[in-house]
Amino acid sequence: MIVEVVAVGTELLLGQIVNGNAASIGRMLAEEGFDAHHQVVVGDNIERIADALQIAINRAEAVIITGGIGPTQDDVTRDALARALDRRMLFSEDYAESLRVRFAASGREMPASNLRQAEYPDGAELLANPKGSAPGLAVTHQGKHLFVVPGVPEEMEQVLRSEVLPRLRSASGSSSTLVSRILRSWGRPESQVAEMLDDLYRSTNPSIAFLASAGEIKIRITAKATDREMALALISPVEAEVRRRMGQAVFGADDETIERVLLSELGSRGWTIGTAESATGGLVAFRLTSVPGSSEVFRGSLVSYAEDLKVKLLGVADLSLGVVSEETAKAMARGAQDLLSVDVAVSVTGSAGPGSLEQAPGTMVIGVATPEDCAARTLILPGDRERVRSYAATSALQLARLAILGDWWTR
Amino acid sequence: MIVEVVAVGTELLLGQIVNGNAASIGRMLAEEGFDAHHQVVVGDNIERIADALQIAINRAEAVIITGGIGPTQDDVTRDALARALDRRMLFSEDYAESLRVRFAASGREMPASNLRQAEYPDGAELLANPKGSAPGLAVTHQGKHLFVVPGVPEEMEQVLRSEVLPRLRSASGSSSTLVSRILRSWGRPESQVAEMLDDLYRSTNPSIAFLASAGEIKIRITAKATDREMALALISPVEAEVRRRMGQAVFGADDETIERVLLSELGSRGWTIGTAESATGGLVAFRLTSVPGSSEVFRGSLVSYAEDLKVKLLGVADLSLGVVSEETAKAMARGAQDLLSVDVAVSVTGSAGPGSLEQAPGTMVIGVATPEDCAARTLILPGDRERVRSYAATSALQLARLAILGDWWTR
Repeated sequence: MIVEVVAVGTELLLGQIVNGNAASIGRMLAEEGFDAHHQVVVGDNIERIADALQIAINRAEAVIITGGIGPTQDDVTRDALARALDRRMLFSEDYAESLRVRFAASGREMPASNLRQAEYPDGAELLANPKGSAPGLAVTHQGKHLFVVPGVPEEMEQVLRSEVLPRLRSASGSSSTLVSRILRSWGRPESQVAEMLDDLYRSTNPSIAFLASAGEIKIRITAKATDREMALALISPVEAEVRRRMGQAVFGADDETIERVLLSELGSRGWTIGTAESATGGLVAFRLTSVPGSSEVFRGSLVSYAEDLKVKLLGVADLSLGVVSEETAKAMARGAQDLLSVDVAVSVTGSAGPGSLEQAPGTMVIGVATPEDCAARTLILPGDRERVRSYAATSALQLARLAILGDWWTR
Repeated sequence: MIVEVVAVGTELLLGQIVNGNAASIGRMLAEEGFDAHHQVVVGDNIERIADALQIAINRAEAVIITGGIGPTQDDVTRDALARALDRRMLFSEDYAESLRVRFAASGREMPASNLRQAEYPDGAELLANPKGSAPGLAVTHQGKHLFVVPGVPEEMEQVLRSEVLPRLRSASGSSSTLVSRILRSWGRPESQVAEMLDDLYRSTNPSIAFLASAGEIKIRITAKATDREMALALISPVEAEVRRRMGQAVFGADDETIERVLLSELGSRGWTIGTAESATGGLVAFRLTSVPGSSEVFRGSLVSYAEDLKVKLLGVADLSLGVVSEETAKAMARGAQDLLSVDVAVSVTGSAGPGSLEQAPGTMVIGVATPEDCAARTLILPGDRERVRSYAATSALQLARLAILGDWWTR
């Protein structure tokens, strides 16, 4: 079944917000095995929305319209839909009453403008939107299935998942389901991963796709089957084979970020961690503490941006080899073990650019100290300051994971 | 002049990437005063791209097509354009030669597939793309202006700015220019800002718009005039009036982030800064060090996630009042002044959620110590862990700025 997405909002055309809804809906449709050939954005203008709907109805089997159903005068999606379908507009006294109750419950008076949200084109069904005041709409027209969902992302997603997708599934009569598993890897370039998995890449069910993002290479394995269990059975042997070939380059799957994986490896050993950061300015610590519950394992960090703090607090004895050097990185990691009383310490020193330390911008040195050993590695990273720092933080987390696994990467 | 944006790429339809290009192009068009009525996304399919171009040509005066001009087999935008215009495809020997030279200069052999990038529909002009191997295209058809730009954002932006926008300007014969000034404010809710500036909001030239993002309220003043100087003359008195009414809530303009403004205020006083962070996990330090040259002013940070580090390193003597308390925040800030040898220290302690410290999730306490005084403020922030930490970091930077200006916010 071909589904077209129409997003309504002048702010999208002006680029004041990015069309994240179209991407989210696209992802959800793809997961369900629906085809998408077009996405359209149109401003808050009745005629142009109605025209866009007309085009969409002609070329797709279902249309999902998002946005333009709030209470203000420039929310005209309902009217445009009525016009495109040439139907009159009705008023749901029941919905109006439910809105009044909703407002009363929160102790507020309902503005009269909210009553517009109880209007609907003749024949449309109102779809529950528990997170907001604007209901979604579902209507069938000349055999085509049209849905209106809110523009607020959280509301959109909820209405889509609980109201729209089930109706689409039943309308399409589809008995197949699409299941994906994402393996996350680090440390091998995309071209090398693609080469290693070339024969698997040619398979169609499950199919394999690669996605490079923020230093990670993700390997997505997607299977189509009559139910979820059958799809997982197709994925399982391919996943095992990818893991066998890639070895420890695969660090997790699906929503297992490197932060979570590292904290979990530490936790299972009863080890704590801390960081000593210069060029990353606290980013490694920030990323570790983004995981709820990280305080069981993460104790703290010293951001030693000024050179004398490296000496005074981390006990780096000899800066003559250079602030950006493997000797300094190792001394920082060992110093952090003491200062922060942690089992494992990660250090980062480098030059993120632009401009000048003693080293070329992009030179980043990572140090890791565990109860067993201590080592450092120098990386030359491409890109601007933001990108270099982000990649360095990811590298630090990855190298710490490998070190903990006993897979020391350099001596 | 009405301009339509057509983005090509199946990965956009599948939601694997978000259509940031459409937003960027929309923004640039709006800045120039061009109108945008539609944005379209279509997959890597010659027929569907050609159809989408046909529709766009019919309803707009100019069309900007982005993506699908790489060297691989699924890059079919060139062919689709030739089909939509019913023109034959030519081959630029000159461009092919320039590609060979480019590859030779980097010591690589050019893959044969790159030669496809030297193809162009009859009558089209090749547009220089200094950052990539695929040239843009410009072609006029039945009085409509069509442009093809790369899909890689950096390449797209460069080709758009240096090749497409000048041609659009001259095609539109537009003698007016649009200039915007953005005032950045913090500390007053959007509704209050809107109320304070209500009469100015009714003005049409310059016009005023509000944009709330990440805790900031931005006030955009936009003027249309025959040239930039005239536009700035229209903006200037309105900017002065906004600043007069808003006072120190306006902290900067255009690309002056709070990080830059704070570092500059410190630098002008010859003061240094450091942070002591618990709940924000290093985010305040990371944001300060995102500014190139921050090492002149920022010295370091202690992320004291574990309670005993607050005692041992920051000298917080009495945790009995609670880890998340104004007394603790003040003690942390004073402790950081000593530990890091800085003039100004900012501290953050709190509960970002989910789950349980002694305080409700979202309770964040900011402390600031300057050479003159020390104070703390408790904030209750909405949202999830990520949002709470981000807002707390912004608040910490803003409260530090106000404290340095002598505008202490609470006692």
